[in-house]
Amino acid sequence: MNRNDCIALDAQDPLRALRDQFELPPGIVYLDGNSLGVLPKAAMARLRTVVEDEWGRELIKSWNTAGWITLPQRVGDKIGRLVGAGPGELVVADSTSVNLFKVLSAALAIARAGSPARLRIVSERSNFPTDLYIADGLARERGAELVLVDADDLAATVDERTAVLMLTQVNYRTGRLHDMQAVTRRAHEAGALVVWDLAHSAGALPVDLTGARADFAVGCGYKYLNGGPGAPAFVWVHPRHADRFRQPLSGWMGHAAPFEFSSDYRPAAGIARYLCGTPPVLSLAALECGVDTVLAASIEALREKSIALTARFIDLVETRCAGHGLSLVTPRDAQRRGSQVCFARAEGGYAIVQALIARGVIGDFRAPDILRFGFTPLYTRFVDVWDAVEHLVQVLQSGEWKAARFNQRAAVT
Amino acid sequence: MNRNDCIALDAQDPLRALRDQFELPPGIVYLDGNSLGVLPKAAMARLRTVVEDEWGRELIKSWNTAGWITLPQRVGDKIGRLVGAGPGELVVADSTSVNLFKVLSAALAIARAGSPARLRIVSERSNFPTDLYIADGLARERGAELVLVDADDLAATVDERTAVLMLTQVNYRTGRLHDMQAVTRRAHEAGALVVWDLAHSAGALPVDLTGARADFAVGCGYKYLNGGPGAPAFVWVHPRHADRFRQPLSGWMGHAAPFEFSSDYRPAAGIARYLCGTPPVLSLAALECGVDTVLAASIEALREKSIALTARFIDLVETRCAGHGLSLVTPRDAQRRGSQVCFARAEGGYAIVQALIARGVIGDFRAPDILRFGFTPLYTRFVDVWDAVEHLVQVLQSGEWKAARFNQRAAVT
Repeated sequence: MNRNDCIALDAQDPLRALRDQFELPPGIVYLDGNSLGVLPKAAMARLRTVVEDEWGRELIKSWNTAGWITLPQRVGDKIGRLVGAGPGELVVADSTSVNLFKVLSAALAIARAGSPARLRIVSERSNFPTDLYIADGLARERGAELVLVDADDLAATVDERTAVLMLTQVNYRTGRLHDMQAVTRRAHEAGALVVWDLAHSAGALPVDLTGARADFAVGCGYKYLNGGPGAPAFVWVHPRHADRFRQPLSGWMGHAAPFEFSSDYRPAAGIARYLCGTPPVLSLAALECGVDTVLAASIEALREKSIALTARFIDLVETRCAGHGLSLVTPRDAQRRGSQVCFARAEGGYAIVQALIARGVIGDFRAPDILRFGFTPLYTRFVDVWDAVEHLVQVLQSGEWKAARFNQRAAVT
Repeated sequence: MNRNDCIALDAQDPLRALRDQFELPPGIVYLDGNSLGVLPKAAMARLRTVVEDEWGRELIKSWNTAGWITLPQRVGDKIGRLVGAGPGELVVADSTSVNLFKVLSAALAIARAGSPARLRIVSERSNFPTDLYIADGLARERGAELVLVDADDLAATVDERTAVLMLTQVNYRTGRLHDMQAVTRRAHEAGALVVWDLAHSAGALPVDLTGARADFAVGCGYKYLNGGPGAPAFVWVHPRHADRFRQPLSGWMGHAAPFEFSSDYRPAAGIARYLCGTPPVLSLAALECGVDTVLAASIEALREKSIALTARFIDLVETRCAGHGLSLVTPRDAQRRGSQVCFARAEGGYAIVQALIARGVIGDFRAPDILRFGFTPLYTRFVDVWDAVEHLVQVLQSGEWKAARFNQRAAVT
């Protein structure tokens, strides 16, 4: 396997044309689409239209004429197709954190209505911090308890005291992928509900919320959905639960008839009650363009390429960087990992990532010791995998990462 | 007073150059800046830079290099200058509805800590619905009670059972302006805290949160701040309260050190703990341009012109539309109104507004019977006031509003 083999793989790649959907900075190998997806070309034109024509010329009328008011549902339906949600079951709104608050509130209330002894939110100790912070905040307010365990202990921990199991399907640090169907089934057998955070799943791999009989899901717009920095998030509630609870962030967009301006809140039917404030039109428009880039492919084909890219990256790093202290953190079994590969290194992880960035290979570092590389099959090529590893080899062999400038921590890592 | 007099007033207007900051559609009299402010020219260029350069080329690095991560504070400080908040006291985040949930949670908790019998949120019956919906949702969760009264009964209602008085300073339907200083003082005398919604105040008139010793405030970015459709909102907490409570939407951006990725939530000091999810960069950038258009003037000068515009509009409508069933809803005393003028009409209000829109005069209708006209002194001219009234005269005299097409309700009114 050499660089030419990778070029040949790219030439045969049935998804290779998808890369043309994006503005990719020249000379960069971007392995950070799991933190911020790259800019879709369509988003530039779309934002110009939304700003200059819809906002600039049509102004307030655009809520109707440009369909602004239905953007949360329209973009939601598109995301729904990627995660196994039916039409009208998923909306775009707020941030992942805020949406987690809504669905955890609902899950706690519904579980307790079935059994008042269910007072626990169970999650993984290494879940993404904002999920834990939101769950902890809610648990304090509701007299519930947040119980954190290691991934391997989840099954044994979910029991008759558990109201809800809250998991991120793909772990942000390790890339480990939970089996949504199996985990959901076991939790249901224990009488608990399940909230899935799809931040690193949506747009990255096939998800079937309906097939798994999941209860609630939230997810992020700015990673594999390419929605832009701070893009709004999404929220899904299984139809069997959607009308059972009035979520506490009961803003006017979740009202059955917001433009009646009634002083009494009457929740909309279905998922619309999970909307809250006025929809962020500019961000929603950009997100729609991002989602469209994923819908341009089959998610199964993307997954197949994702596995091929990550497998090759693991193989090349382990072969070519042997003896440099990198140990694979991501599951070697492709069925058990998402679309990222992480290595731990006892020292210098941050500086090595910085040295790679200086060479144009963009990955990221996750404290305390993780070098993280995300692979977005829409635009990542096999030759990018080769080049990234080549730079990593050079960074490690030269020891250039030890230079002081690579060791100065920036505010956002 | 005729049209030429208005043109003369515009020629003498010391603020006339401010209009050049905006893209205004030709042939339109836009009296709806209190629903959606018009597009600042700077926002077009800024969004292009943010999208094409910062997102498109610099990608994830822009969180540091383009200052994305500090946008909530930077734009917040600018808004703070318009509402009497000190530097570092106000942040931009989420929606008005979500921010209300945060500050009402804090206000309830702080008030109860002082006196457990304080279980009431008091508000105005005709407050904007989303404020009432959020307060009602929170009251249900917290075992509190939402008590709604008419504006004139507020003073008598706030008593030893009141935790928090929640008011929108300028009523969205009537334009009535509360005296922030006097109302806050009376509420404090009764031992209650005050939450101010500045949706129709920020950027429209001088506000002095610090001088009034207010406790909490939220406000909207897409009205007089010209931040674009669904722009993010802002939240302010007086420094004496900011560190006293951990608000329940404890997302990672409110953490003392979000990029340590600690599993334990440690709230940031001060207002930063009122942040929640990842900041919406595109929307924040547009909002900053909108806020800059207001900072280009003195808010006192804007207020002076606003009063002149609204006084003239009232005078012209009452003189020229006499006998057509319009009755002034907005206070005649300029010190008691915001920057809008509303008339009630027993029938046909919606259709009259639609007929005006068809003529290029954009106001809006608020159920059940209000014709609402907003005046944004940054771009509204005296000749616009004249022309709007001239069209209103013609609509009423011709009876054209009775045509069926004007009576068909659109989804968003």
